[in-house]
Amino acid sequence: MAAKSLATCIFCKIIKGEIPSYKLIETDTVFSFLDIGPLSKGHALVIPKYHAEKLHEVPDEYLTETLPIAKKIAIALGAENYNILQNNGRIAHQEVPHIHFHVIPKPSASDDEGLVIGWPTQEVEQEEIEQLHDELLKKL
Amino acid sequence: MAAKSLATCIFCKIIKGEIPSYKLIETDTVFSFLDIGPLSKGHALVIPKYHAEKLHEVPDEYLTETLPIAKKIAIALGAENYNILQNNGRIAHQEVPHIHFHVIPKPSASDDEGLVIGWPTQEVEQEEIEQLHDELLKKL
Repeated sequence: MAAKSLATCIFCKIIKGEIPSYKLIETDTVFSFLDIGPLSKGHALVIPKYHAEKLHEVPDEYLTETLPIAKKIAIALGAENYNILQNNGRIAHQEVPHIHFHVIPKPSASDDEGLVIGWPTQEVEQEEIEQLHDELLKKL
Repeated sequence: MAAKSLATCIFCKIIKGEIPSYKLIETDTVFSFLDIGPLSKGHALVIPKYHAEKLHEVPDEYLTETLPIAKKIAIALGAENYNILQNNGRIAHQEVPHIHFHVIPKPSASDDEGLVIGWPTQEVEQEEIEQLHDELLKKL
């Protein structure tokens, strides 16, 4: 695998052990640790060991283990309710420019802990979604 | 692979073609399609072809292709900013009780389209996170 690291990246430094972390699981392709600014108790991060900012820049071989590891962490946390979230881009709420998946327990329905979600569903015409579908099929 | 389907599940019916969908990519283990109640143009779903409500109930072999397929869709959408989200449990905003990953473009910083995120960071004592870390390592 063609690993990739960036000397100035805080998550690359955590992977290399240059910055300490509350490490949970490490494999050849992913590294996981507790978030020290958690939204709830047990909030953890799973990060591919490949420096890229966004999902579409990461080679597939660094993505296959991510969800099985997030699953292991969810089981260890024993959370019944939780969110898996990965943000791409500043306006999509990405804070650190190294791809990372959040595992965030949702202990209660309260907006005071865990991920808080707003869901602004759009009105969409059938014709519009059919046209988009046709366009996407040509690109896939 | 031990596939699993539930006759009464709307997503299992979509996978089997019993309910029509704007299908994007299908593999042996995952199925993807456009969300007809989108948060933004191009909002898509990627679902493992295994009936389970939550991430921790899905066999690993149904999870490995999920992110590579979400990545392909993100590339086809051409979105610069987007969120990957998977909700587990009603209070974590899960609407359909069959595991699904949202690919949600965030075309602008506006709260009127795309995923809207609230981030209630918790105060946490170092001792508390160290104790949690020790507990989790015993379970992992």
